[in-house]
Amino acid sequence: MSIQRFETGKRLSEAVAFNGTVYLTGQVANDHCAPDIYIQTQQTLASIDRLLEKNNSDKSRVLMVTIYLTNMDTFGDMNRAWEEWVVPGATPARATVEVSRLAGKEYGVEISVTAAQRTT
Amino acid sequence: MSIQRFETGKRLSEAVAFNGTVYLTGQVANDHCAPDIYIQTQQTLASIDRLLEKNNSDKSRVLMVTIYLTNMDTFGDMNRAWEEWVVPGATPARATVEVSRLAGKEYGVEISVTAAQRTT
Amino acid sequence: MSIQRFETGKRLSEAVAFNGTVYLTGQVANDHCAPDIYIQTQQTLASIDRLLEKNNSDKSRVLMVTIYLTNMDTFGDMNRAWEEWVVPGATPARATVEVSRLAGKEYGVEISVTAAQRTT
Repeated sequence: MSIQRFETGKRLSEAVAFNGTVYLTGQVANDHCAPDIYIQTQQTLASIDRLLEKNNSDKSRVLMVTIYLTNMDTFGDMNRAWEEWVVPGATPARATVEVSRLAGKEYGVEISVTAAQRTT
Repeated sequence: MSIQRFETGKRLSEAVAFNGTVYLTGQVANDHCAPDIYIQTQQTLASIDRLLEKNNSDKSRVLMVTIYLTNMDTFGDMNRAWEEWVVPGATPARATVEVSRLAGKEYGVEISVTAAQRTT
Repeated sequence: MSIQRFETGKRLSEAVAFNGTVYLTGQVANDHCAPDIYIQTQQTLASIDRLLEKNNSDKSRVLMVTIYLTNMDTFGDMNRAWEEWVVPGATPARATVEVSRLAGKEYGVEISVTAAQRTT
């Protein structure tokens, strides 16, 4: 069982896979000036889609997600984008917490993902 | 290796299992009016027991736990319930952090769990 | 597939391994009076090294890390120690969030680690 790394930089890899499970680095919006958390969440989930596809997985195979919001009042906005994204019948385990700050002050949402790779 | 999901709703599944490992959605107290964190933690751990049993695991097979408190001054209250619950000699890895808010303002503790399924 | 636990106490085990993956309890600095987050991070990573070695793994096999800082202004200090520690070409997935408090008020950084064991 070897370890596969994807988009490996000096601090982190965007994805790391081992033993059929892939771990994604906490994803944020591409455009940190995005006006609201609905749009930031959409962009974040698009990044997650891209990373999952590159690592032999997809959003129907997500196992566990941790969502960090900087303001729990945006829980509804995040969930609106989330519910448009998840695959009905294949929703993951999930925890959502409000933290005081993310790595950039502009970010209001960050999402960590653990997913299953395809076994074909 | 297929993915098993349990109590699957439109946002999340309460438990997701893959490759012998089960991930639980962050659990909170059933009664959010519970007067203190000792009782909230007891209720949270009872929910975890229920989900583990339904997913071919139990509290002696917990691997890793993340505990989110909204006030670290309740660390002792949480630990009192925790120590009454854990199986001596089979305690999991654990991280405890204080976050500024959970999904409901009434909640003072949320617990995420990764556990091993039975292999019989 | 049995569960291996390491340095098991009444609340937690410092490391738990199952199915080739090892989970470490959130690590903090040994010396909580360490004057800055660069040094606290160095000490935390040294504890992680020790636990990984004891559990048939090492820093080149880290899969996913969650870093909790109590002040995101120390992100650069943490990263300085981090970049000196990680193995070039083998960096893990990583999420960094600012929480309002760790289990001890003196601590400014806590790190949770999931790693792959050696498969020899």
